Amino acid sequence: MEDFYPSRISEKPQIMKRRDPVIHTDRKHDHEAPLTKDQLDFYEENGFLQIENLFSDKEVAAMQKAIFELQESNSCVQSEKMIREPNSNEIRSIFAVDQDDDYFKDIAADQRLLDIVNHLLGSDVYVHQSRINYKPGFSGKEFNWHSDFETWHTEDGMPRMRALSMSIALSDNYVHNGPLMLVPGSHKYYVSCIGATPEDNYKESLKTQKVGVPDNDSLKWLVDQGGGLSVATGKAGTITIFESNTMHASTSNMTPYPRNNLFMVYNSVENKLVEPFAGAGERPEYIAVRKTTEPLGKEKILK
Amino acid sequence: MEDFYPSRISEKPQIMKRRDPVIHTDRKHDHEAPLTKDQLDFYEENGFLQIENLFSDKEVAAMQKAIFELQESNSCVQSEKMIREPNSNEIRSIFAVDQDDDYFKDIAADQRLLDIVNHLLGSDVYVHQSRINYKPGFSGKEFNWHSDFETWHTEDGMPRMRALSMSIALSDNYVHNGPLMLVPGSHKYYVSCIGATPEDNYKESLKTQKVGVPDNDSLKWLVDQGGGLSVATGKAGTITIFESNTMHASTSNMTPYPRNNLFMVYNSVENKLVEPFAGAGERPEYIAVRKTTEPLGKEKILK
Repeated sequence: MEDFYPSRISEKPQIMKRRDPVIHTDRKHDHEAPLTKDQLDFYEENGFLQIENLFSDKEVAAMQKAIFELQESNSCVQSEKMIREPNSNEIRSIFAVDQDDDYFKDIAADQRLLDIVNHLLGSDVYVHQSRINYKPGFSGKEFNWHSDFETWHTEDGMPRMRALSMSIALSDNYVHNGPLMLVPGSHKYYVSCIGATPEDNYKESLKTQKVGVPDNDSLKWLVDQGGGLSVATGKAGTITIFESNTMHASTSNMTPYPRNNLFMVYNSVENKLVEPFAGAGERPEYIAVRKTTEPLGKEKILK
Repeated sequence: MEDFYPSRISEKPQIMKRRDPVIHTDRKHDHEAPLTKDQLDFYEENGFLQIENLFSDKEVAAMQKAIFELQESNSCVQSEKMIREPNSNEIRSIFAVDQDDDYFKDIAADQRLLDIVNHLLGSDVYVHQSRINYKPGFSGKEFNWHSDFETWHTEDGMPRMRALSMSIALSDNYVHNGPLMLVPGSHKYYVSCIGATPEDNYKESLKTQKVGVPDNDSLKWLVDQGGGLSVATGKAGTITIFESNTMHASTSNMTPYPRNNLFMVYNSVENKLVEPFAGAGERPEYIAVRKTTEPLGKEKILK
């Protein structure tokens, strides 16, 4: 298969134009979307969108309870699916929660979310990756700038930009407690990064990403193009959708306020994984789903 | 001399009440102040105050130019007064600029600044410490929570809380480029920290502070008391005044935007340094002034 987005194979970084639509349903069908025209415009232009109040307060409270029950019940479990803090043993992320837990399976298949995702990706979708992120007060570490797509393409063999991330905030996100920072418009460009993927890179990269990180000049160029940076703040329950290729990062959390979220990546069923384009072997199923790719949702899209 | 604020001598952290006024001129003289009553109230209550437009755009542009000329002319200078980035050789701070450079000496003695400082400290003042901080894009490191007074008291022998810091922003401070975070109201309490001061602690602590850092429980308590955290954003030229004991920190700067400032600490002439209260010897003159403590300003206060 042709590599539309080569990375980690050259010794010089390179910025190329995106070769896929951002919204995969034709814009003349805007009136059928579960989002307003303004929301669609914002997402297409900036590569992200925040939605408040999609879930009720009761639903948000239930999710907040559920993530801690899952953290508690897994505190002594040794599993690759649990990522722990580099400097402590605290669980930082639990992967594949949509597969291992019925409660989170239902959330991933919530029809309100799927309506949005189906429209943006213009097809049926499945969950490529899911996880709960626990970013506790005082000890949440920073995460360097990266495009998720760059990793999914090189390490997982995701062919095209036809996926998106959905982060459901499960604590209040302030400007000061390590919120998601996004480069508006960065999804329109692809930064081909330098360096080869090390063997079993994911074991390190889930803690501190080193390969697939854009060089400073490219990042500055992207920020200049986008006219600044955006910070995804919002009360618990706020949903942040960001396009697979939108450049993002987060600083450490030095405050007493935790920053927890439920994170799901949806991929189009027409964009299933193939051989990694620059990886060192396939990553495990809990990070990059290859088996359970049946379309989600009660009503499948027929086109 | 009695130690009003013991720290680094117990094995348990302790929170005690402040034993000094915040505004050292009697509040019945508010009408004589170069600040409004609202500004004075805000400073007294929160322990910090931001002032915009005190300097003209032209003055700010001149300062911005001057700090880079000084950085440039010192790039190859080996001096204790230049603090460089832990992971690179870039100059991060230059100390004692009010003593070594006539231009910055004049700024430190700017009568508009002195009028404010004289009023808040209720006496003549001198510069206890000055520095330019260069926090370049991408590489500025985080600075952990601390009260400056805790360090000045234990390591420098500053007897009482009758000093303040003045930070003049020389680049735009956004929420995302590692701005100063402050705990409102924290100046009303003193966190007695655990651990003894290591020999020559300042050589390490100017890069990464480890001793004199409050424990997480005390910090959470302070934040709860203050009802949250404040972030000192503002365009270049904005002045942030914060009381010597106000708890503050800053995250790393992962953005392309630099965060530079000119930083001056003013101390009351009635609060000159004595023997360090829990130090391991006196720190150098460029960090803690003992010699040049003549009152600043054309018109001295007579009271």
